[in-house]
Parts: sequence; structure tokens; C-alpha cells
Amino acid sequence: MIVGTEWLVEAFDCEPEKLREVEILRRIFSCLVKDLSLKTIGAGIWHQFEGEGGVTGLVMLTESHLACHTYPEYKTATFNLYCCRERSTWNWEANLKQFLGAKSVSVQKIERGTSNSLHESKIQNLKSKIVGGNV
Amino acid sequence: MIVGTEWLVEAFDCEPEKLREVEILRRIFSCLVKDLSLKTIGAGIWHQFEGEGGVTGLVMLTESHLACHTYPEYKTATFNLYCCRERSTWNWEANLKQFLGAKSVSVQKIERGTSNSLHESKIQNLKSKIVGGNV
Repeated sequence: MIVGTEWLVEAFDCEPEKLREVEILRRIFSCLVKDLSLKTIGAGIWHQFEGEGGVTGLVMLTESHLACHTYPEYKTATFNLYCCRERSTWNWEANLKQFLGAKSVSVQKIERGTSNSLHESKIQNLKSKIVGGNV
Repeated sequence: MIVGTEWLVEAFDCEPEKLREVEILRRIFSCLVKDLSLKTIGAGIWHQFEGEGGVTGLVMLTESHLACHTYPEYKTATFNLYCCRERSTWNWEANLKQFLGAKSVSVQKIERGTSNSLHESKIQNLKSKIVGGNV
């Protein structure tokens, strides 16, 4: 039984200073929540790691959750969007290019609640999207 | 550049009433955090959905994050453990059997921060573990 869909997203070659800005990451989340008509539960939790470190953000949704981790030292950000109700696909590529200056974006969609063997066959048929890619 | 490892875990044929108990889910997280020497940031957020609904839990870690969603109606629970530092593999099967009465458990390990093509080849070589499985 498929209980949800999870998008695993990686943004590469981002502008490092943007990956240290909690406010920019918050804006990405807000935009995503609005565009997909998601509903947040509570305020979410955000953490800015010390010094040159990145940001972690976790937001609970009535539809499941949203998470991000940024790694300025590698110019990389990763996102998880887990939805237990059907949602259209967000334009991760255009948005992460705009907000973080990402030069390439990878999007994986995984169905949750299925056994591993089902995962494997589905993952082999993934619709990959790489934009601008020099990765 | 691999920036983290994520375990996507599904527990099947669990005892539905256990999937409605925030306290049991909290204990699973505590046990995992202790066993893998993880460090939590703040208190985490928990939500018990109304009526016969399940539980969502999100906990921030200095090593990334931990999430769970339960679906008593499908006797299923899903977990994400994202670690940006190397950690040994937890015995999800034994623990989810013990805590939730799961009859089968599926564990997928995915490297984060790599492009989709790398994901695909790695996912095909996943070490799957199904225990007790009638799924």
C-alpha cells in the first residue's frame, strides 16, 4: 500500500552565502507550501550551524513533512518533501536556480509504504531531471 | 560529493494501536539516538492526528534529522534517518518488531548529494532486508 510520495532533491553548485541564510531557505519553504497548497503544523524548526556552517530546517505538514540541509562548503543543498496526499510536481529546478543560484538540480520521486523490491523497480524507472548540469 | 546518508525504512503489519501512541514512537527515537550516539537539537515536534489517525514526529540532529509517519489504517509506519556523518546501521528490523509488532521491515540506504544518475546505479545495488515478510 503506497502511503505517501517523497521527493528527494539535490541542488548543486549553489552560491555558498545563500546556503547560510535561514531567511532564504524559509522563503523556499513558504513558496513551496503556497504553490502546492500544503498546510503547516506549528512553526517548524530551524538551525543555523556555527561559523561557515549551513542550515537545517524541518517543517511538519498535515500532508507529512518538509526538510532541508545545506552544505555551503560543497555548494550543495538537499531537500525532502514527503506528502501523504497526491500533489503535483513542484518546479524545483527553476525555484532552486532562482533562490540559491543552483546550476543543476536532481529530483527523485519515491513511493513510500511499499516493500523494497517495489521500490527498486520503480526507482529504475525514475524520471530524472538534471538542469544546466555540470555535475 | 556525498554529503549524507539517508535510511528510508518501512515497517509493515504493525499493531495499529501502537502506531497511535506518541510515547512508543518517542521511545523508538530515543533508542535510535542513544544506540547511534546521535545528538538532538531542541525538543523535536510531535503530532497526533485526530480520531483513529497516526503520529508524525520530527527531530533535528546535529547530524541531520529523524522523521516518522504512522498509518494505523494500513498497519504501516515509515521512518527517515538522515545522517551527514558516518554511522553504523541500526537494527531496524529487531527494533520495529519489538516496539511496533512489525511483521516485516524494509530498509533502503541512499547517499545524498550525488546526482540522479549516481543514485540510480547505487540504488540498484541496495542491500535489501526483508524480515518475516508477507508483503
